[in-house]
Amino acid sequence: MKDLPFHISALHAAYARGASPVEVIEEAFRRIEEAGDPGIFLHLVDPETAKAAAAALPPFDPVAMPLWGVPFAAKDNIDAAGCPTTCACPASVYEPEADAFVVAALKAAGAILVGKTNLDQFATGLVGVRSPYPIPKNAVDPAIVPGGSSSGSAVAVARGLVSFSLGTDTAGSGRVPAALNNIVGLKPSLGALSATGMVPACRTLDTISIFALTVGDAWAAFRAAAVFDPSDAYARPAVAPALAATPPSFKVGVPSAATREFFGDAVQEAAFDASLAELKALGGEIVELDFQPFHDIAKLLYEGPWVGERWAATEAIIRDRPEEMHPVTRAIIGKAEAFSAADAFKGQYALQALKRIAQPMVDAVDLMAVPTIPTFYSVADLEADPVAPNSNLGTYTNFVNLMDLCGLAVPLAPRADGRPGSVTLLAKAGRDAALAALGETLHARAGVRLGATGWMAPRGAERAPAALPDEIPLAAVG
Amino acid sequence: MKDLPFHISALHAAYARGASPVEVIEEAFRRIEEAGDPGIFLHLVDPETAKAAAAALPPFDPVAMPLWGVPFAAKDNIDAAGCPTTCACPASVYEPEADAFVVAALKAAGAILVGKTNLDQFATGLVGVRSPYPIPKNAVDPAIVPGGSSSGSAVAVARGLVSFSLGTDTAGSGRVPAALNNIVGLKPSLGALSATGMVPACRTLDTISIFALTVGDAWAAFRAAAVFDPSDAYARPAVAPALAATPPSFKVGVPSAATREFFGDAVQEAAFDASLAELKALGGEIVELDFQPFHDIAKLLYEGPWVGERWAATEAIIRDRPEEMHPVTRAIIGKAEAFSAADAFKGQYALQALKRIAQPMVDAVDLMAVPTIPTFYSVADLEADPVAPNSNLGTYTNFVNLMDLCGLAVPLAPRADGRPGSVTLLAKAGRDAALAALGETLHARAGVRLGATGWMAPRGAERAPAALPDEIPLAAVG
Repeated sequence: MKDLPFHISALHAAYARGASPVEVIEEAFRRIEEAGDPGIFLHLVDPETAKAAAAALPPFDPVAMPLWGVPFAAKDNIDAAGCPTTCACPASVYEPEADAFVVAALKAAGAILVGKTNLDQFATGLVGVRSPYPIPKNAVDPAIVPGGSSSGSAVAVARGLVSFSLGTDTAGSGRVPAALNNIVGLKPSLGALSATGMVPACRTLDTISIFALTVGDAWAAFRAAAVFDPSDAYARPAVAPALAATPPSFKVGVPSAATREFFGDAVQEAAFDASLAELKALGGEIVELDFQPFHDIAKLLYEGPWVGERWAATEAIIRDRPEEMHPVTRAIIGKAEAFSAADAFKGQYALQALKRIAQPMVDAVDLMAVPTIPTFYSVADLEADPVAPNSNLGTYTNFVNLMDLCGLAVPLAPRADGRPGSVTLLAKAGRDAALAALGETLHARAGVRLGATGWMAPRGAERAPAALPDEIPLAAVG
Repeated sequence: MKDLPFHISALHAAYARGASPVEVIEEAFRRIEEAGDPGIFLHLVDPETAKAAAAALPPFDPVAMPLWGVPFAAKDNIDAAGCPTTCACPASVYEPEADAFVVAALKAAGAILVGKTNLDQFATGLVGVRSPYPIPKNAVDPAIVPGGSSSGSAVAVARGLVSFSLGTDTAGSGRVPAALNNIVGLKPSLGALSATGMVPACRTLDTISIFALTVGDAWAAFRAAAVFDPSDAYARPAVAPALAATPPSFKVGVPSAATREFFGDAVQEAAFDASLAELKALGGEIVELDFQPFHDIAKLLYEGPWVGERWAATEAIIRDRPEEMHPVTRAIIGKAEAFSAADAFKGQYALQALKRIAQPMVDAVDLMAVPTIPTFYSVADLEADPVAPNSNLGTYTNFVNLMDLCGLAVPLAPRADGRPGSVTLLAKAGRDAALAALGETLHARAGVRLGATGWMAPRGAERAPAALPDEIPLAAVG
């Protein structure tokens, strides 16, 4: 049991051989204890409760319950009945009466929740060090930041403590920590996963996201979770078919040489070039795009009025008890006070104008590929400057939800210095499956170890012939 | 010439018989002078310039130029080269270098601009009395308000001074004055008509609109104007085919008995019931809808943060020279100062939640029918209370652009007291043609005189067999 990889195919193979899900859950708690990092989880489910849930599963049937006996964790801005929700702000704690809609859907598919994970307070940040609790250590290299805001969820997966985890992603919180911890980060199309029971950051831009060791596992969790929720006003019907093979050729938009940004990190730039070579080897035709409008949209999110959404989400704390917030978080969200309603609309106009330039570039390709992160930052970097490195980390993530794209961060071959490689695939809303199919192939070709574990990816199942990305039906948009 | 009706079929019949467009333009200016109402136009095109444009038309060809020799007016928040644009605020006047995109398109189709019309200042109002200039007199009854904000444009058409006119419509400014002056008001799908060269009111909700004596004329102007403008970030491709016949049966959503609102005006309620009887006679199946969520959306526009858009549009005046604004307009737009960016986003959330309730009702019917106005107000009413009657007039118009619907106000048989009847047809964006086809039939059946003229509607041309509204292709949404 101690050596059992926690990716779903290994778990399900063990279950098929008669392994007990109660023992797997025991093993998950043992690994959490052995990990010895008090920064990962803010709350653990009582092991007896989790084991009872495992014991109560019907007989093993991975078709009926595709997540049967699979341990998972949820970021602590997502409700789970019986666990407090803190958003990493003790002053805002409450005891939810019900599971978040997505947590309930995952449990219905057989998954077993083991705990709630640390985050940048109120999901504000991409670094993972903006929490009043101990900071989770990056699973690959404790000197670098764990990434955020879904820090604990990413580290828990990367260390093999759970099979998958839920994060949230507004500006990149479901992708940046994936790149920093050598795991998969699936950032679904907005509205595909219900936000009921999730504490919002920016309600118009938020989505629950999924971290996993493999693309297949992330996709399995996504399919189980992507149930339309009429009670979420921003929910949209999701498109989540079984994965098809990748098409023989496809157009990949990438930032042009003149509009790339790596903040001087030549090693990262070389790694990105290597990822483009991989895409070409798979049939990708690389199309260089003037990325300036995408960068301009990214800046809007950091410098524009959308921070008013964060204010609206945290108003009771920041207005009445600001001293109970993390100082960096308070400073960031406090900027909302300077923005009027007129400013909020001016931000919309600016976004609309930039989209009018950027959208045709998106429409002209099947998908886009960007570095998930432009460079790496250490915990010490963030102690010296808590803001600028955080902003830089969002270079290739901030524009994505403002443009209504879906995204997938895929681990690739390590950089020349051994740090994890990662590329993010992006496409229009509704094309999540096309990204997952290609991402799974890319990940398999990379042949890298999973997260910070020694495990290798399982061989993917043979898949049905490819649909071109264009042929993937788009979801009706509500 | 003096007795020539100015609807397009009469004009084109005269041109076919050899009439001169120069004489028609002369006649338009004669009628304007004869009308003796200094409140209608804020600026007249120099008659020699207009006549020169008429003289410069190529030989009469109504297929190549469907608006050949047709005089029109434009609301004075829409640019026309050579005319100042005032928005009925003298302090904000400027001399535009170019025609608005839509004005240019209309001229290219052969239309001749004769002047710029009065409006509620900055297009803020539904009454037409919020202007520092003389108030245009209602064409039907000078005791009642002319309606706004597109007051001058509506009156100019209703009095037969021009064939059609441009208004703008954010909260109902293209529909309310149509009802009050017994004319057609076409409120296109958002984005169908370019906003380039139009001074915004609420940029996310504005559209240029069209007033005409007949639905066919409004549709002809719309088709000529509905050219996609890539320079307008909010433009969307329009669907503007030739009109088909109405389908033999269709579902019409109407406010339920419990959620109707006529502010005690039983005569208006009876007139609305008569309009529903007309729809039934044409094959309409009446479906009563709980209109409360639509009313709630309407209230959002008046009481919510969207006024921040009006602030953004008038900032230079209201911030620096508020004393130069109309006091009522200043008071209304000044309310924006109380709304923060967080409030603006909260408004979006509230709208989204209400749409989630209201949208399925829209989706379940082919179109909706509402009273264009719930009742009539006199100029004296507005002198007594400049705000509440204005708000009431928007009961059935305010929610429309927030819900991305298209609309058409159609004159019907007069009420029992002789005041004009009007019904507004509403449908999802992109279904403008279905509304126009039905509206033209309704108007023809009503057999009413046009505007405040003695003219009767021409007999409509036979049309191609009907497409069900469902079969009208929706525009791609950018």
